[in-house]
Amino acid sequence: MSHYEIVGDWGTSRLRLFRVEQGRIAARRDGPGIGASGHEAEAAFAATIAPWLEDGAPAEIRLCGMVGARDGWVEAPYAECPADAEAWRAAAVRFDWRGTPLSIMAGLACTGADAMPDVMRGEETQIFGAIARDRALGQGRHLIVLPGTHNKWSVVEDGRIVSFRTMPTGELFALLRDRSTLGPKIDEADPAQEAQGFAEGLERAGEGRLLSSLFAARTMRLRAGRSADWARGYLSGLIIGCEIAEIRSTLGATDRILLIGDARLAVRYAQALGKSGLASEILDGDACALAGLGLA
Amino acid sequence: MSHYEIVGDWGTSRLRLFRVEQGRIAARRDGPGIGASGHEAEAAFAATIAPWLEDGAPAEIRLCGMVGARDGWVEAPYAECPADAEAWRAAAVRFDWRGTPLSIMAGLACTGADAMPDVMRGEETQIFGAIARDRALGQGRHLIVLPGTHNKWSVVEDGRIVSFRTMPTGELFALLRDRSTLGPKIDEADPAQEAQGFAEGLERAGEGRLLSSLFAARTMRLRAGRSADWARGYLSGLIIGCEIAEIRSTLGATDRILLIGDARLAVRYAQALGKSGLASEILDGDACALAGLGLA
Repeated sequence: MSHYEIVGDWGTSRLRLFRVEQGRIAARRDGPGIGASGHEAEAAFAATIAPWLEDGAPAEIRLCGMVGARDGWVEAPYAECPADAEAWRAAAVRFDWRGTPLSIMAGLACTGADAMPDVMRGEETQIFGAIARDRALGQGRHLIVLPGTHNKWSVVEDGRIVSFRTMPTGELFALLRDRSTLGPKIDEADPAQEAQGFAEGLERAGEGRLLSSLFAARTMRLRAGRSADWARGYLSGLIIGCEIAEIRSTLGATDRILLIGDARLAVRYAQALGKSGLASEILDGDACALAGLGLA
Repeated sequence: MSHYEIVGDWGTSRLRLFRVEQGRIAARRDGPGIGASGHEAEAAFAATIAPWLEDGAPAEIRLCGMVGARDGWVEAPYAECPADAEAWRAAAVRFDWRGTPLSIMAGLACTGADAMPDVMRGEETQIFGAIARDRALGQGRHLIVLPGTHNKWSVVEDGRIVSFRTMPTGELFALLRDRSTLGPKIDEADPAQEAQGFAEGLERAGEGRLLSSLFAARTMRLRAGRSADWARGYLSGLIIGCEIAEIRSTLGATDRILLIGDARLAVRYAQALGKSGLASEILDGDACALAGLGLA
């Protein structure tokens, strides 16, 4: 009889798998993102876990993320908001893979107050994991923010995800930094200059005019002696600050604000939220993902 | 004695030269943008006009645009706003090129009410040209808009350019369309679908929340049956609409609003301004540039 399970997150840019024995992480393996794997998803998965299969097949496999998208491995449905953990788990797609039960977790869909549809795949696992890890989150109204490429701002009420909005702030910042005429080439990073630019970008964002403020990343270097590092920090602060200004205008009161994601980025969001007078807590993303996949 | 002059606009992406005889355009030649020419600017210029030089040297050469930037051919200063045509013309850099007097027109610099510096190079020539062509613009307060990669929103008072703001809306749109996960691949364009998306993007922009509304370019296809053409139009309408919403909040009353630039884009801006209740007129960009270079 199999003595281990495999759980993991297969997103657009990477596959992260954990081997679980008696409820504990025994090993980890990384593989290619589902974006790169496409129709070769099954082969890429099998290749990534090949060393583990030498010990026999796992008892169960549970995956979340873009692996369940239309262009993923097997399409999983979207659970509709408001959704609690139970409804979301029930919406997973399950099939037999080489004799092992394999689940691909559902995504979430919602329709905003402005009639705009929205979707997520993968982040819901971290959100439900955060709720599983901290029972206090099961009561009241909280904002859970997952900054990254496509940031998810999610409202959780009494343990259910009631709505969320995707802000593609991370993607926009990367485009501006790497591919625009506004993003400076940086040979040697100067963190102090960048932090100063970030603070000034946040300050500028208070006016809520993103498009009017972008060009200053260039003109402040040309006309006001700012450095390339300053300009990169400014773009980041400006965009994050405008993101927060926009979301604030649509949010009601919340009890707690929680940030889940890359530690460095989470710290920047905490700083930006603090500048708006909003206190926040940073949660460990891996721990939340694993809890969402059943390792509470 | 020379019987012709050369005037032209040498921008980042192209060189456009006109041969002028007795105050009229006799011929036109195009060459590489100054961005591509860099240190080879002089050689590129000489190569472009080589056929004309066979008739002898021109009497005078006048150029505007990024040719006068720090990385251009010869750096021309910025005239400071408020600036009238006379002060701007006086700031040109002049030198002798192979026996011919050559002028590179100055750019313009200003500092916004928000203390943000701004610059332009090339657009000022079209603005002063528009004023030269329509004497009524020399009185009153007008908004002259030059949509393009880096849009210039310029306030003209009694014939002087008093302030302007650059909005890099065109560059942002191109990044989103061509390089982001939000920009749809389009095999065969459907103008009706795109126009519908543009109108819905403008509508959405009324709320002034750009970052919150971008992701709908994807989710409306995924969840609401919209097409790739619709999504491209939506992104354009959303960004232009947000640009107008931002600038409106900073503008005082103006007598007339004039659009100078690519005809197709100018029509879109006229449509978007109209949706905000603002009437505008479209001017011919080439005619304005030539008038600014002295061919009134």
